[in-house]
Amino acid sequence: MDAPPIGDVFGELLRDAYAVRTGIGPRPLAGGRVPRPVIEIIERDDGLINGAPADQYLSEPDDWQPHDHRALRLVRGAVLDIGAGAGRIAIELQRRGTAVTGLDISAGAIEIARRRGLRDTVRCTVDEYARAPARYDTFLLLGNNLALLESRERAPEFLAALAALARPGARIIAQGTDPYGTTDPVHVSYHERNRARGRLGGQLRLRLRYRLLATDWFDYLVCSVAELESLLAGTGWRLISIDDADRPYYLAVMELTN
Amino acid sequence: MDAPPIGDVFGELLRDAYAVRTGIGPRPLAGGRVPRPVIEIIERDDGLINGAPADQYLSEPDDWQPHDHRALRLVRGAVLDIGAGAGRIAIELQRRGTAVTGLDISAGAIEIARRRGLRDTVRCTVDEYARAPARYDTFLLLGNNLALLESRERAPEFLAALAALARPGARIIAQGTDPYGTTDPVHVSYHERNRARGRLGGQLRLRLRYRLLATDWFDYLVCSVAELESLLAGTGWRLISIDDADRPYYLAVMELTN
Repeated sequence: MDAPPIGDVFGELLRDAYAVRTGIGPRPLAGGRVPRPVIEIIERDDGLINGAPADQYLSEPDDWQPHDHRALRLVRGAVLDIGAGAGRIAIELQRRGTAVTGLDISAGAIEIARRRGLRDTVRCTVDEYARAPARYDTFLLLGNNLALLESRERAPEFLAALAALARPGARIIAQGTDPYGTTDPVHVSYHERNRARGRLGGQLRLRLRYRLLATDWFDYLVCSVAELESLLAGTGWRLISIDDADRPYYLAVMELTN
Repeated sequence: MDAPPIGDVFGELLRDAYAVRTGIGPRPLAGGRVPRPVIEIIERDDGLINGAPADQYLSEPDDWQPHDHRALRLVRGAVLDIGAGAGRIAIELQRRGTAVTGLDISAGAIEIARRRGLRDTVRCTVDEYARAPARYDTFLLLGNNLALLESRERAPEFLAALAALARPGARIIAQGTDPYGTTDPVHVSYHERNRARGRLGGQLRLRLRYRLLATDWFDYLVCSVAELESLLAGTGWRLISIDDADRPYYLAVMELTN
């Protein structure tokens, strides 16, 4: 088979998941009649392939994990929700009267977030947005979006973009996952292989697929709290609290110190 | 990436789905702690990739589609359940006091079916089993297993193996899906491409993937009732009824005429 064409995998996935959930728009059908669940397919560069139901991106607060609710209690001031997707978090903040902007690189994700009622959206990377005049008090990286730090090389750039968008005393509220609690040999040997290549153990190399489309391969950093602290060194961001009540998931709060 | 290693994808998938459902055996975990849903990944040779929750293979009668129940009302005598998987259908027949053998080529599937209580199992192809002395009154091809006919070339061999295993007046009860109700251009153009290559429109070329493993590519025949009738010509099997109340799914009953 040829390499699959590159496209807005996440947007297509959310559009279909939204159609299945709401009945609005054409739904993916089995046999032309029966709605089929929308599954996000995640390939790792060691050949591991996993599927995950996409409906989670549209879940309502009653179905969220407890740490999502605790994260929102830490929000203050104007919020930039980074990797906002279909607006799961941002729409809830907006409903509560918080000033919130949803940022995503996926055109399809932004379209669905707006269709679901999110008013303030921006489709670009944080680097591009850092050249805009907008300023924020809180940056949200929920739904495992701490992984958007990508790598030792990328993390300082990403954090510098947030610093450029920050009001004094701004905070990042990020949800991460400690990758090292597993004993699964498939994952343990992947971590070792990564380290042998000079990468962080949980620096996953992934691509997403949905139907005929794929993304390019990208780094997705599943890091421990200790690794996060080392990545923050020299960035101006300081770790001020960790909430790991829902291990292996954790919430990290970082504040700008300068 | 290299081609993934070939292995018992279906067996691994069922083993994990069984562990998630029952808590017996090691479960696939996210972050080493959180059970994750087991998803079967299906690749088609045009690059289409889909995921389907594997838990359906372990579903209890209350969760079945109506046509599964109607199929079991058509059963008579000794039953060979072909592509029995984790024993969803065969275990229910056994519970009802029917003499039933579960046949599957997957060692892992047979292991799980036996662990769930299915007593009479055989791990081989129908061709291999046709050399055994066993004889049956009913052959079941449920859960879309009519697709095991594969192709114009393979169907007569497959049906000859069942004829060799048949008692006089034996019947096949098969569940198929009419592929031609769709207007999805991805599927319509795939059907056209197949026909241009001399294949039946719904003669899917698939492979399954789960975690690190893949199957070889195989043909999986999603055919209309008219196509099924043409495949039966000269095989000794005659179509005696079609139940298409759950379109696009249908139940076909075939009887041996000689």
